[in-house]
Amino acid sequence: MSLLLVSKNRDFSALEEYIHSIDSNIDVEIWPAVSNPDRVQFAVAWNHPTHFFSGYPNLQAISSFGAGVEHLINDTSIPQHITLTRMVLPSLAQQISDYVLMSVLNILRRSHSYNKQQRKANWETHQSIPKETITIGIMGLGKLGTATAQKLALNGFRVAGWSRSKKEIESVETYATNELSTFLKQVNILICLLPLTQETKAIIDLNVLKQLKQPAFIINAGRGEHLVDEDLIYALDIGTIEHAVLDVFIKEPLPESHPFWNRDKITITPHTASITDEKQAAELIVENYKRLLSGMELLYRVDRNLEY
Amino acid sequence: MSLLLVSKNRDFSALEEYIHSIDSNIDVEIWPAVSNPDRVQFAVAWNHPTHFFSGYPNLQAISSFGAGVEHLINDTSIPQHITLTRMVLPSLAQQISDYVLMSVLNILRRSHSYNKQQRKANWETHQSIPKETITIGIMGLGKLGTATAQKLALNGFRVAGWSRSKKEIESVETYATNELSTFLKQVNILICLLPLTQETKAIIDLNVLKQLKQPAFIINAGRGEHLVDEDLIYALDIGTIEHAVLDVFIKEPLPESHPFWNRDKITITPHTASITDEKQAAELIVENYKRLLSGMELLYRVDRNLEY
Repeated sequence: MSLLLVSKNRDFSALEEYIHSIDSNIDVEIWPAVSNPDRVQFAVAWNHPTHFFSGYPNLQAISSFGAGVEHLINDTSIPQHITLTRMVLPSLAQQISDYVLMSVLNILRRSHSYNKQQRKANWETHQSIPKETITIGIMGLGKLGTATAQKLALNGFRVAGWSRSKKEIESVETYATNELSTFLKQVNILICLLPLTQETKAIIDLNVLKQLKQPAFIINAGRGEHLVDEDLIYALDIGTIEHAVLDVFIKEPLPESHPFWNRDKITITPHTASITDEKQAAELIVENYKRLLSGMELLYRVDRNLEY
Repeated sequence: MSLLLVSKNRDFSALEEYIHSIDSNIDVEIWPAVSNPDRVQFAVAWNHPTHFFSGYPNLQAISSFGAGVEHLINDTSIPQHITLTRMVLPSLAQQISDYVLMSVLNILRRSHSYNKQQRKANWETHQSIPKETITIGIMGLGKLGTATAQKLALNGFRVAGWSRSKKEIESVETYATNELSTFLKQVNILICLLPLTQETKAIIDLNVLKQLKQPAFIINAGRGEHLVDEDLIYALDIGTIEHAVLDVFIKEPLPESHPFWNRDKITITPHTASITDEKQAAELIVENYKRLLSGMELLYRVDRNLEY
């Protein structure tokens, strides 16, 4: 029995050490130097090669190394009987909610204008947007969306939330799938924390952006594919959207030639809103590996029909 | 009896309207068009002309239009019998604590590096500083400092506070004047929210900056005179301080030739951390004006010996 770590662009040696510091008897294999594929029962995957898993006949479960699982759902080489799980870690929720809080404050306090002005030694003041005059709307109320909604409410913001199945969250007005327009019409700052599924792909298009309340802003910390790039650029150009903060992109790293880079109305971070904490990840991986060996139900199983 | 509004650079016409919307019978004079100086009993002053108040023989009290009162304390033309008051408004504490929270998050999440990189279409990631590894230290635990300490603690930060007289604040470790070194040695992000007095002028010098814990940062939302500019530049150059966020300066607007402007390690905002809310200000002004006319004690009196 062994546990496989596989990624095309991530060095998993520290993760292996954390796993062994919890249980030194676990047999860990790191791709590509896999000595015995037949013994692998559990895999942790992040940006894995295509058609990768057909070479592991005894594989029973795969965990994503992040909160998103679209790379596993969309891999048709993974047989249906294989259990998929994802990372649900306190650090991910803390990081992403801090990122959103920071981005909201930067928008309201006009940080983007002041950063630009500083290069020109320009002392011009701009009206801040009073927090009590705006509503923040969160699309996606899973673990990350709920933690973010709660943190914003704790900091005195009016928060609305929209999700596939209607949720109950204290101090947050929640809306179900069919209430999208009602939700959007009251929202000034739209935050995307949805899982990426067939239903949510390209969900943030011009039609959605146009329904937001003025002044309108968007923060995307979900996936690049949630947003229609050209629609955002058009909405910024015609003034429907005043500013966008983007952490995720359809192609990453964002190509140098992409029009997002040199727009003053867009703030870019290189997919750093939340980074999986390897120590916490190791604990969850060991827990699920042991559950698998004992025949128990795994934690944070993915529902293939819901795609998350 | 009349109420005078005086400022060299601020338009007080909206403030006058707010005052009249509360009580239309109050006789308001706005400098320089003062019809009857003899009738002025109460003045609201912000950046007033030098030796201004000698022309108002029946003046009994002056309110600063902000939280700071150094412009009144240092004006030797104001007789000692005149009562001084300052603005203590919920909006000031909310704005300044949000500014500090935003600046702390920008520091930890390396926003300054990402802003700079965006201009070069550079997708380079930097290690964020985990919030649980740092301590934030607040110098000055008045209304603004206390509100800021509480907001940071609420958001999961370890917070220490230092003030002239030792304070008790839940979830905040507090230190008294003679414990400055003990306080500094555990602090990574130093925040200045002190009143400007003879004792606090130039308090943040190289000796203070050198005692901070590495990595060290500073946020000044107090007054420019709290900080020794050359000492900060030296501390940034030798790496003692990694980054500074400055909202206040010895001379404002900050002169175009000042070395702060073009330093990557300094983020500048043009004294916008908190802006007095004119509606809330009008309420406090009317309250104190009526108290004065009735011979009652005024709210938020300044102690001339403490200078705040």
